[in-house]
Amino acid sequence: MAGALTRFVDENNQLVLVAGGGENARTYINAARKLGADESTCDLLGIQITRANAELLRVAFEGETAAVSARSLTRLPELVRANGVVVMGGLQPGQSTNAVATLAAEITRAKVLVNATDVDGVYTEDPKKNPRAKLLRKIHVGKLLELAMAGRVFAGRYELLDPLAVKILERSKIPTRFVSLSNPENIIDAIKGKDMGTLVVYD
Amino acid sequence: MAGALTRFVDENNQLVLVAGGGENARTYINAARKLGADESTCDLLGIQITRANAELLRVAFEGETAAVSARSLTRLPELVRANGVVVMGGLQPGQSTNAVATLAAEITRAKVLVNATDVDGVYTEDPKKNPRAKLLRKIHVGKLLELAMAGRVFAGRYELLDPLAVKILERSKIPTRFVSLSNPENIIDAIKGKDMGTLVVYD
Amino acid sequence: MAGALTRFVDENNQLVLVAGGGENARTYINAARKLGADESTCDLLGIQITRANAELLRVAFEGETAAVSARSLTRLPELVRANGVVVMGGLQPGQSTNAVATLAAEITRAKVLVNATDVDGVYTEDPKKNPRAKLLRKIHVGKLLELAMAGRVFAGRYELLDPLAVKILERSKIPTRFVSLSNPENIIDAIKGKDMGTLVVYD
Amino acid sequence: MAGALTRFVDENNQLVLVAGGGENARTYINAARKLGADESTCDLLGIQITRANAELLRVAFEGETAAVSARSLTRLPELVRANGVVVMGGLQPGQSTNAVATLAAEITRAKVLVNATDVDGVYTEDPKKNPRAKLLRKIHVGKLLELAMAGRVFAGRYELLDPLAVKILERSKIPTRFVSLSNPENIIDAIKGKDMGTLVVYD
Amino acid sequence: MAGALTRFVDENNQLVLVAGGGENARTYINAARKLGADESTCDLLGIQITRANAELLRVAFEGETAAVSARSLTRLPELVRANGVVVMGGLQPGQSTNAVATLAAEITRAKVLVNATDVDGVYTEDPKKNPRAKLLRKIHVGKLLELAMAGRVFAGRYELLDPLAVKILERSKIPTRFVSLSNPENIIDAIKGKDMGTLVVYD
Amino acid sequence: MAGALTRFVDENNQLVLVAGGGENARTYINAARKLGADESTCDLLGIQITRANAELLRVAFEGETAAVSARSLTRLPELVRANGVVVMGGLQPGQSTNAVATLAAEITRAKVLVNATDVDGVYTEDPKKNPRAKLLRKIHVGKLLELAMAGRVFAGRYELLDPLAVKILERSKIPTRFVSLSNPENIIDAIKGKDMGTLVVYD
Repeated sequence: MAGALTRFVDENNQLVLVAGGGENARTYINAARKLGADESTCDLLGIQITRANAELLRVAFEGETAAVSARSLTRLPELVRANGVVVMGGLQPGQSTNAVATLAAEITRAKVLVNATDVDGVYTEDPKKNPRAKLLRKIHVGKLLELAMAGRVFAGRYELLDPLAVKILERSKIPTRFVSLSNPENIIDAIKGKDMGTLVVYD
Repeated sequence: MAGALTRFVDENNQLVLVAGGGENARTYINAARKLGADESTCDLLGIQITRANAELLRVAFEGETAAVSARSLTRLPELVRANGVVVMGGLQPGQSTNAVATLAAEITRAKVLVNATDVDGVYTEDPKKNPRAKLLRKIHVGKLLELAMAGRVFAGRYELLDPLAVKILERSKIPTRFVSLSNPENIIDAIKGKDMGTLVVYD
Repeated sequence: MAGALTRFVDENNQLVLVAGGGENARTYINAARKLGADESTCDLLGIQITRANAELLRVAFEGETAAVSARSLTRLPELVRANGVVVMGGLQPGQSTNAVATLAAEITRAKVLVNATDVDGVYTEDPKKNPRAKLLRKIHVGKLLELAMAGRVFAGRYELLDPLAVKILERSKIPTRFVSLSNPENIIDAIKGKDMGTLVVYD
Repeated sequence: MAGALTRFVDENNQLVLVAGGGENARTYINAARKLGADESTCDLLGIQITRANAELLRVAFEGETAAVSARSLTRLPELVRANGVVVMGGLQPGQSTNAVATLAAEITRAKVLVNATDVDGVYTEDPKKNPRAKLLRKIHVGKLLELAMAGRVFAGRYELLDPLAVKILERSKIPTRFVSLSNPENIIDAIKGKDMGTLVVYD
Repeated sequence: MAGALTRFVDENNQLVLVAGGGENARTYINAARKLGADESTCDLLGIQITRANAELLRVAFEGETAAVSARSLTRLPELVRANGVVVMGGLQPGQSTNAVATLAAEITRAKVLVNATDVDGVYTEDPKKNPRAKLLRKIHVGKLLELAMAGRVFAGRYELLDPLAVKILERSKIPTRFVSLSNPENIIDAIKGKDMGTLVVYD
Repeated sequence: MAGALTRFVDENNQLVLVAGGGENARTYINAARKLGADESTCDLLGIQITRANAELLRVAFEGETAAVSARSLTRLPELVRANGVVVMGGLQPGQSTNAVATLAAEITRAKVLVNATDVDGVYTEDPKKNPRAKLLRKIHVGKLLELAMAGRVFAGRYELLDPLAVKILERSKIPTRFVSLSNPENIIDAIKGKDMGTLVVYD
């Protein structure tokens, strides 16, 4: 993936990568919850793991195109301008890394936000449970919010996109597309505007 | 208000106060928006003002009962244990100070969260527009979420409680009451469990 | 004003802007003082507002010419070199933002320091009280110090230039001019060396 | 383990716990190394995981006996005095968490340092490879250094005790015992001075 | 000196100690100035040395009465309340450690400020140059300011009390006494109100 | 020396300079030790002085080629890329500035590490005590470790190269040469690969 992304940055583009927590974050969160930790503390623990994951992304860029890490939104625009590639993990309890990505897109006035997951985009139902689930090529931000609200925000729990993230999309109308992470080229293609996965529409 | 709260703390209680931004924050946010700032940057500016407001609260406690300021959730439990009273403003773009208050309640395992505004609690309609609006004595967290979702999250815009805040209430079932800020004793009464304003119910 | 300053920076110049606290800072300081706060704490509160004001200045530069914020002198030269435009508010209790501006000029070896206020320069008397007050085209740093010493340093109180600021001018002989903030072009003209307002002389 | 340690702290004792990285740290380090990261960067990544591990230890203490986290040695003595229990992970590239533990013991003037691993103490040979390996009841610091020097310091690689750690023991003659982590009571017994595992001797 | 001060703190008093830079700071400042450094940078270098000096003071308290270090005024009151003894060095370019001491006295609402130097107090002339110089038992803050203004503020240059420091005394009327550092008991005696050295008067 | 190094940087090279503590650090460390400080605290005090020394190096570069300071390894590669010249002092108790230099070389993937001291390189014996001591033109890293282990790691004590530093060299095989600091051109010559002093060999 780093190869594809590095080529993209070498074409004089700027990139912010936000890493999620994945299975490892969930393992730590579950251990903390069993020990009696509150949900905010579980979130904070998960954030530590997302930062380690972000660091692995950063390392993948070492060499020609060097990436740096950011731990707050305040200096993010400055870091992107100076370095071209910035990696981030989570920031605050109560915010998924999806929400971080939307905030990062907003404050850097990103041209496009790509949400890459393990499915091809937004489906009418869970495609892993129902093989007849249909991929939506477009989804209105209002509908997306409705789907997001149906979930509950426990730390580390999988959510397509949490309500806060959708609210940020809605307020800034950030051009957003959901694609599959399975093929690294997908991300570049989606950034470049290829019609794939699910596009969020605002009108 | 500080007098009432100081007496409460002197009775060996602990207190976290989260200040909102008020009219002054909205003035700064509007100025920034006119200059072309993105919403996250507007949020950050509003947060600076909430912190100045929190500082005024802190100062009101000087003397017998000294308060300290916190700028992150990570060390909040430690600061509350060591100092008894902690003041906070906003923390992150995309989060209202209502959400900060719920996260602070969650991570400190607060016995009660009181949301003091300029109305007596949650109404069926906006009491300032419709005199026949009826005060709800209880509201289910699900209904609260529905109300919260109806609003849009522009920086500094008044919201009873933003969706993120309600989601945090829901996940940790924090005992929460909405009261009027008009009388300082209200806050203490509400903290002590007096039946007033609007209570959030979870079942 | 941002338009004029942006053009100046686009001509390959570097700029540090130090914002004062204005009426809003005085409102907070007076509130804190009434609550019994000491003067250093009042200063710190005023500094929070100067930083919000500086942030508004920063936002005005967004776009082609992006500005960054600085909160200490240590990294200021590095930030100016890397970004071209840096905004600052106050730094420490006991220091006006005028003093910050002189220290910033000193540590960045600025070619010129322009102090823009709501009057045309330094007068023989307060021009708002006495219409016969005469504008001084030049003032010796020793005379400036004498004027500065006559004031008292309460937080947020208007002072032409506080004694510390004059002492810094004196020790580093920074080329300094007082002009009116009424016309944005004035600041650029003064930076470029046009004979206007009041010039500080050192011999 | 938290139960045993909590009781110990409740008896008015002070405790600093330093978490290692374990298998999870090695997973991250190996991934980074494959991506071409240098050893210092691998160390930094491992340190992020030791801090998440330390956070899990911290959480186990929540309730009666609350623990706090430390990320530098400078404020460690202050944190121990104020809070009773402090957890730490790694600090710097080139330093194992064993070295951190010795430095923490040194700067807090700890009465005893217990090194708990998955074997009963220091053996003549690797007890997992050679069943006839004999447990040493005492080991001279000079001999310990010799053993430590035989290893190589790659990030995350298991080492009984790295040379830096032994050098710190040597310079401050910290009373140190190696015990098995298998039974939580072992740690308390070792702290209280029970003759078990392997004791480091200095004369 | 630490012995005398420790006994004072053990009598349940609170203490902030501000260390100056001394000869060593002047050596660094002169070296920097010869290398072409600006005065603010010289100040920053001197501040680093005052902090090392403060650290030596801190170390002298280790044991029964442990001291902590502070690097800003913001958290100073909190640190004094929690720890009893706090040491500080310089804070900012343009501020002598005398000014830091007055600001620290102001923000902690200190009962008394003792300025201990190598002479017995304030003299009519320099006692080292003129043996007929007369020790003043009292000095009005206005006269003190006049003396302070006669000096020039180059980094590390000896000044009885810089103008900023006097301005802070003036605004908060901090009870202040100048005594000789030659006898450690002097400092305690002066703190306890013994009539010695030179007292600053405000009316 | 700055002149020689500046020319080197102007030829489009990058440079990290790590300053030692020297005689001044030893003075502070001895004073602290006499006051009863532990070795880690002595190390921390020495580190403060190395940072002041590094600042003097930084100042020497002001003008065409501006240097910046770093206080951690994490952001070091980023700072070197952005600024060309970075100065550092010590980082952590238990680590000499020699170790810091090897870690800095490792994390920046330096092409060469030059260790400049007051002797011409590594000798068979102490050349100051035995005039027949012979300069080694090459030394194997294993032999270097053996020499390093013979010393003891008290704060501020002169060591050719501490064991941790040698271990870092060993793990990353950093091309390293020991030369005399007596002639500034030596450092540049050694960086450029001239055969002088003592070269570390790894096979």
